[in-house]
Amino acid sequence: MGHLDPRYIELMDETCEMLRAVYQTENPLTFPVSATGMAGMECVVTNLMEPGDEAIVCVNGVFGTRMVDVMERCGVTVHRLETDWGKVFSEEDVADEIQRHPKAKVIGIVHAETSTGAHQPLEGISKIAHEEGIMLVVDAVTSLGGHPVKVDEWQIDAIYSGTQKCLSCPPGLSPVSFSPRAVEVIESRKTKPQSWYLDVTMLKDYYLGKSKRAYHHTAPVNMVYALHESLAIILEEGLEARFARHERQHRRLRAGLDELGIGYIPEHSLHTLNCVRIPDGADDAAVRASLLDTYNIEIGAGLGPFAGKAWRIGLMGHSATQANVDLLLAALVDCLE
Amino acid sequence: MGHLDPRYIELMDETCEMLRAVYQTENPLTFPVSATGMAGMECVVTNLMEPGDEAIVCVNGVFGTRMVDVMERCGVTVHRLETDWGKVFSEEDVADEIQRHPKAKVIGIVHAETSTGAHQPLEGISKIAHEEGIMLVVDAVTSLGGHPVKVDEWQIDAIYSGTQKCLSCPPGLSPVSFSPRAVEVIESRKTKPQSWYLDVTMLKDYYLGKSKRAYHHTAPVNMVYALHESLAIILEEGLEARFARHERQHRRLRAGLDELGIGYIPEHSLHTLNCVRIPDGADDAAVRASLLDTYNIEIGAGLGPFAGKAWRIGLMGHSATQANVDLLLAALVDCLE
Repeated sequence: MGHLDPRYIELMDETCEMLRAVYQTENPLTFPVSATGMAGMECVVTNLMEPGDEAIVCVNGVFGTRMVDVMERCGVTVHRLETDWGKVFSEEDVADEIQRHPKAKVIGIVHAETSTGAHQPLEGISKIAHEEGIMLVVDAVTSLGGHPVKVDEWQIDAIYSGTQKCLSCPPGLSPVSFSPRAVEVIESRKTKPQSWYLDVTMLKDYYLGKSKRAYHHTAPVNMVYALHESLAIILEEGLEARFARHERQHRRLRAGLDELGIGYIPEHSLHTLNCVRIPDGADDAAVRASLLDTYNIEIGAGLGPFAGKAWRIGLMGHSATQANVDLLLAALVDCLE
Repeated sequence: MGHLDPRYIELMDETCEMLRAVYQTENPLTFPVSATGMAGMECVVTNLMEPGDEAIVCVNGVFGTRMVDVMERCGVTVHRLETDWGKVFSEEDVADEIQRHPKAKVIGIVHAETSTGAHQPLEGISKIAHEEGIMLVVDAVTSLGGHPVKVDEWQIDAIYSGTQKCLSCPPGLSPVSFSPRAVEVIESRKTKPQSWYLDVTMLKDYYLGKSKRAYHHTAPVNMVYALHESLAIILEEGLEARFARHERQHRRLRAGLDELGIGYIPEHSLHTLNCVRIPDGADDAAVRASLLDTYNIEIGAGLGPFAGKAWRIGLMGHSATQANVDLLLAALVDCLE
């Protein structure tokens, strides 16, 4: 099926509609960027920001650090609000930073920091930002489809995710959503977004152009087809049931790890990404290789300051099952012997 | 299979090696960008060019026009060399333009202009550009895998393509290749490329990092798997046999269209994309709809100045068969009645 085939346009419209359901939003401008998750970050930043703008970016892991880099490449003056890896930001942290930099156009924050497993509460922060007229940009790569992500209720202005985490679709697309307010800001830009491929002012004529679809780029048709199916599966399960399943399996894993004396690093842990301390004496690489070779289970290595110190165990989407949790626990016992 | 799985790394290495064969190059930096064809253009431009650089861009259709836009978004001063849609550029055109703008860092040109079907000869132009120390950037979206694209012999410095044209793979990746000279230029940049996602200075540590693969972004694993298979099929057929097949089917189509009184627009036509004049009295949209509905054959509408005046008939990769040519000709007779 070609990307201009009328049947494809229908498929894409349905996909965007299901994405709105999963993002819990009415935002018309909700669509999958034609590239993996990091392109979603770049799409949001490149479209919202112009050279000379100021932004506050909350940094407590790899993905906050990246957002700083992506912002700076757009000519943005970035104020980093930092905390230790594994910790989250309090409303007070954010309020203080906003007081210091009241001219910031956006505050960028990671909802689910894949590098640390920290689960950032957003609702209070959003309120504080909006009271000061600052837009909220959220990285939901590892939460969408596994944790509630309430774009409208939490007043998120721009958000991106990836397909290969809790949506249980192959990697290749990055679902984004922009609030009407963000769209207004984009439409009143003084300069063109620096990326043609990610330029929302053109993409919206494709994704929202009801009467006539303006050709922009060739969409990855098969990937959109896969996402369509993944979203249908999610909505069939139901969001609440899905979130409850992620929580249940997280608790089961946590209890099992506790029995093995393996503790969590973040105080506020995600259900979807379980970042735990490698037990004393365990050979990091050997255990991971053995899990992969013998059990076909891949767990993540620690990144940055957690390299060699942490394992990151995903319980995402389709894979968050009791059978997987129990197999991993048994496999860990075996590999740690 | 995860994007960090050792088996995936092997698959990717093999894919890059086969891409080198299809691009007829030894360039180490040859890999599929994790997004569709236009991201390949953006990858090449964003990495080679810095704000304040000058470039000559040859414009004779949609994709030359786009390259100007992408260049300008990078802060490049663009000198447009224009000719009519459907025509190609002569060596003299290019030599004159270079005389006028000797400070140009690159000359950008489209090998296979998908909007007009024009087939641009490159070898002479490349010689002229290199004599003046100017790098050659080539768009090969609709030629790679259907026409010879001799990156080393033609001394192309940077080139991009798409997977969904003559490589007969779904859309989703953009194979690129950079000459060692282009890599030197990129490594001596004064500024960071404005796109993080497409930053070759980081991507090369992933694609070429033999001992240790530096994680950059999650690759679209399934797409790379598909490209791997497509390239294997191409190399099994053999490049020369494949090019000959495209030429044969182009000639067959051309002869058949000639009998129907349907003429080609470009003098130098691609084999892979056949841009023809819509016969007087034919209803453009109705014929295309009828071809799609009754015969499941999609032909392209005219773009820009050719809207309503041209049809673009693809004979690309897997689809360039005698059966398809003969069916289309029969279907056209039926739909034009």
